[in-house]
Amino acid sequence: MKTAKNRKQSTARLIAAGSENSADLRYACGFQPTDPVVLLHTARERHLVVPMLELGRARNEAPTATVHTPGDLGLSPSDRRSLAAWTVAITKKTKTQRVRVDSFFPAGIMRALEAANVRVEIADDALYPEREIKSAKEIEFIAQSQRAAAQAMRAAVEEIRAAHVNRAGELVSGKKTLSSERLRQLIQIVLLKNDCDGKETIAACGRHAADPHHRGEGPLRAGETIVLDIFPQHLKTGYWGDITRTVVKGPASAALKRLYRAVLNAQRVAREMIKPGIRADQVHQNVARTLSSAGYQTKMRDGVPVGFFHGTGHGVGLSIHENPRVALASDVLRVGHVVTVEPGLYYPELGGVRIEDTVAVTKSGAKILAACPYTFEIK
Amino acid sequence: MKTAKNRKQSTARLIAAGSENSADLRYACGFQPTDPVVLLHTARERHLVVPMLELGRARNEAPTATVHTPGDLGLSPSDRRSLAAWTVAITKKTKTQRVRVDSFFPAGIMRALEAANVRVEIADDALYPEREIKSAKEIEFIAQSQRAAAQAMRAAVEEIRAAHVNRAGELVSGKKTLSSERLRQLIQIVLLKNDCDGKETIAACGRHAADPHHRGEGPLRAGETIVLDIFPQHLKTGYWGDITRTVVKGPASAALKRLYRAVLNAQRVAREMIKPGIRADQVHQNVARTLSSAGYQTKMRDGVPVGFFHGTGHGVGLSIHENPRVALASDVLRVGHVVTVEPGLYYPELGGVRIEDTVAVTKSGAKILAACPYTFEIK
Repeated sequence: MKTAKNRKQSTARLIAAGSENSADLRYACGFQPTDPVVLLHTARERHLVVPMLELGRARNEAPTATVHTPGDLGLSPSDRRSLAAWTVAITKKTKTQRVRVDSFFPAGIMRALEAANVRVEIADDALYPEREIKSAKEIEFIAQSQRAAAQAMRAAVEEIRAAHVNRAGELVSGKKTLSSERLRQLIQIVLLKNDCDGKETIAACGRHAADPHHRGEGPLRAGETIVLDIFPQHLKTGYWGDITRTVVKGPASAALKRLYRAVLNAQRVAREMIKPGIRADQVHQNVARTLSSAGYQTKMRDGVPVGFFHGTGHGVGLSIHENPRVALASDVLRVGHVVTVEPGLYYPELGGVRIEDTVAVTKSGAKILAACPYTFEIK
Repeated sequence: MKTAKNRKQSTARLIAAGSENSADLRYACGFQPTDPVVLLHTARERHLVVPMLELGRARNEAPTATVHTPGDLGLSPSDRRSLAAWTVAITKKTKTQRVRVDSFFPAGIMRALEAANVRVEIADDALYPEREIKSAKEIEFIAQSQRAAAQAMRAAVEEIRAAHVNRAGELVSGKKTLSSERLRQLIQIVLLKNDCDGKETIAACGRHAADPHHRGEGPLRAGETIVLDIFPQHLKTGYWGDITRTVVKGPASAALKRLYRAVLNAQRVAREMIKPGIRADQVHQNVARTLSSAGYQTKMRDGVPVGFFHGTGHGVGLSIHENPRVALASDVLRVGHVVTVEPGLYYPELGGVRIEDTVAVTKSGAKILAACPYTFEIK
């Protein structure tokens, strides 16, 4: 009799994904489709079902997979357009009676499989938990995106340095206002020149900087914090990088300098704690304690959270947010994990400060993947 | 007793989506989240459940929705991290016993809803079929992205025009080889300067151009077709554009000129047929007939399709590929549809030609959304 664990390992894994949500697919077989495809990954084989249009690319990019088209699977012309029909057909062809999928697997295909008497197990967590531990090659890919991010950061800091301040306190570069939008564009162009896409870059000033997910808009202003959060995905490898710096076009007030020092210190504390075997939630709780000991309270105020109210970090790889989490869950850090370290403090009346590096967990602790100065006050 | 149709209209629609697959979400409430959120859209109300971090942005961007956080819904700390728990909680709070989802809805959440006795109907086709018909404002948003694409196209054509040809027959611009990668970067920078992202731009030459999904790599060569397919998404509005031109750095052979003229003629035939009330499959079949009458056969050769083996077009909006399809399905075109018109011919020994415009269906026929010259041979 098989044990639950053996059964879990031998159950075929099934993915139905397009270019938008295909990190597992890329990991499992190397293929990055334009249109949705199906991958059935058994203990011994990988079966890809792709539209006729993707046949050539699939054969080239996924040499370890057996590539099928809907026509090969004997589907009727109308079923050839149904991803559910492809999926049922490939399970029949391979005599697969049980599959494992992740929780975001398409519900419509699950129903079709069940109607065809294929049992569908939904993985509690990741379908490819092995993605957490990165090989040396993967770490180099992440470092490559991280170096692009650091280069874009330096360009953004130089742009702010070169800007002057007009009477309204707004930054002006050349003859035009230096806005969040303009700085973001400058960052994105540097990323593109490094073969990276940085669509969701954050360049947020003042009260926008106090909202960690605000991407920023309008003129940048002197004397206010500017959060620059750059997280590019490499257009070829698919691996991400993630870096944040916070700067002020000076002079910065004493209150802002204190806020910055508290976050910088907490970030260093977290990096120094990271080593194989440590529980990530302990790192996170220590960061929270360090910030509150420095006098920065986390609480709800007028229905809005202030202080330190996000995780300390997250895994980075073929997804920008993946396991492990450096937060309240009790993940244990191991050699080959790549995580961000990004404490922050946010108060609407002051602004926001976040400082983030992406590090690899090595035997000797956290290794920063791309150096980038911790610039704060820019005069 | 309710009829099936009435019931369908009154069933609450449910979306669980992040930034990667949120066209319906954006359409239904205007919100574009970074992290996954849940929208329950009843006949009268929109309920959004968002992480605490998204609260401020959700309230601003989705003023028609009631915004909840996992904490508000009385969830335990561990359930606050579970999108399935959020979803079950919002159905309970609103006393919703039946929901409709699209076929890509997350399977894990469907199981959780069923376990909580919420009945889940999976829509056969789109969850928001009304997305097909665009308002004047939406058409202007698509035209805006289309103008950016046309501007990038002109820049790419000028770059090819300015290039010279070295002894190996490769294009050289400045002192460097003009490659697919370099031309794609130039296109992407023009798009960025127009607030658009063009991550998957195609700039494919020769035998790569003969594979409609190949993005292109390596040096561009004179005398071979270069397919430039530019489909940007506007970073603010989320609407896409889609345009393709095929050029040859001359001289082009007589065979390539004939191939080009056949596609250009088929594209014109399709545009002229488009009007309200026409069946899209008839447009498609007429394109196929026009190409085969010109002597270009579609068939399998050595296991690879050659000729015209993709649809004539697809809807464009908040998704790059959406309904209606101008292909074998019998969609009827209506005023407010926005579709691409993009016949192509592909033969590995010759190359590929595709010509594409995005048009709005108006009372008086197809209206091209952004003018762009039909340049072919570039000397």
